[in-house]
Amino acid sequence: MAEERVQRRLAAILAADVVGFSRLMEADEAGTLAALKARRSDVLDPLVAKHRGRIFKTTGDGVLIEFASAVNAVQCAIDLQQAMTAANSDQPPDRHVILRVGVNLGDVMVAGGDLYGDGVNIAARLETIADPGGILVSGTAYDHVGSKIKIGFDDLGVQTLKNITKPVRVYRVAIGEQARADANA
Amino acid sequence: MAEERVQRRLAAILAADVVGFSRLMEADEAGTLAALKARRSDVLDPLVAKHRGRIFKTTGDGVLIEFASAVNAVQCAIDLQQAMTAANSDQPPDRHVILRVGVNLGDVMVAGGDLYGDGVNIAARLETIADPGGILVSGTAYDHVGSKIKIGFDDLGVQTLKNITKPVRVYRVAIGEQARADANA
Repeated sequence: MAEERVQRRLAAILAADVVGFSRLMEADEAGTLAALKARRSDVLDPLVAKHRGRIFKTTGDGVLIEFASAVNAVQCAIDLQQAMTAANSDQPPDRHVILRVGVNLGDVMVAGGDLYGDGVNIAARLETIADPGGILVSGTAYDHVGSKIKIGFDDLGVQTLKNITKPVRVYRVAIGEQARADANA
Repeated sequence: MAEERVQRRLAAILAADVVGFSRLMEADEAGTLAALKARRSDVLDPLVAKHRGRIFKTTGDGVLIEFASAVNAVQCAIDLQQAMTAANSDQPPDRHVILRVGVNLGDVMVAGGDLYGDGVNIAARLETIADPGGILVSGTAYDHVGSKIKIGFDDLGVQTLKNITKPVRVYRVAIGEQARADANA
């Protein structure tokens, strides 16, 4: 065909980052980096593989992960937060690694291994407003998870997100009160 | 991992079938089958390839096509209806092949090359209630197309579809009045 078109694909995007990363680094740079590296190899990478995800971007304190299924993305987010809480329980409080997670679904643009567009931006924006240890899911991702995961969701209503034109319905995953209490400790 | 889980993936599903297929077959079985075969090789297959789709089920008068992108699925549906109208214009009325098309987006279950679940069923159901020559798109597919395709959509509201538990918002693609008039001729 003559025309060159943007390649697109449907993807569920999980954005995660470490709460208080700058503060942790300031307190103990080498120790923080070692702790994050260990959590990545012991916790994150195995869960991403289990749920058939693909990490397509990493920053110092964050990752963006693509899943072919919204169900897999949300289940991975839940497993990730629970595993991080469990790993924290063996550590002194100043060694706790606590994540914020956002999940969205989008018809994203593909360039090389990287993904672009609102589908990615909304996941990242949800992550920034999630509670420490918490997971926020956009309405469109929620709609495709529904009853396929046995966990509750709190409807936080339609919200205007920074730098996102269209308002987004936001759901909070009702991960166990214990996990949330630990995460906020 | 010990557990065996259902494999899932996000897909845009296009369901299409031939209006009045039984009547056409009754009038001229060999001629109808030859006409459908020609339309498939001359019109359908090239458009599916262009929009990176995959035909995963065919019946006598219908096809189910998977796309990795909702934008691609809806654009293919529009191109398909326009190309069928153009192909009909060279033929006597009793040789016209007219399609109904439905498009949906879902987190579908994958088994071998086949896809299952509400994601597929809703596309097929939308197709059955589409106008001859028309295209109906579910709300969740529409949400991921938005302004990425330069065509209008008529909001038909939230509808209860046969054998589908959850009500579905339905949009009709505003393909040219001429195409619709030809299709209804």
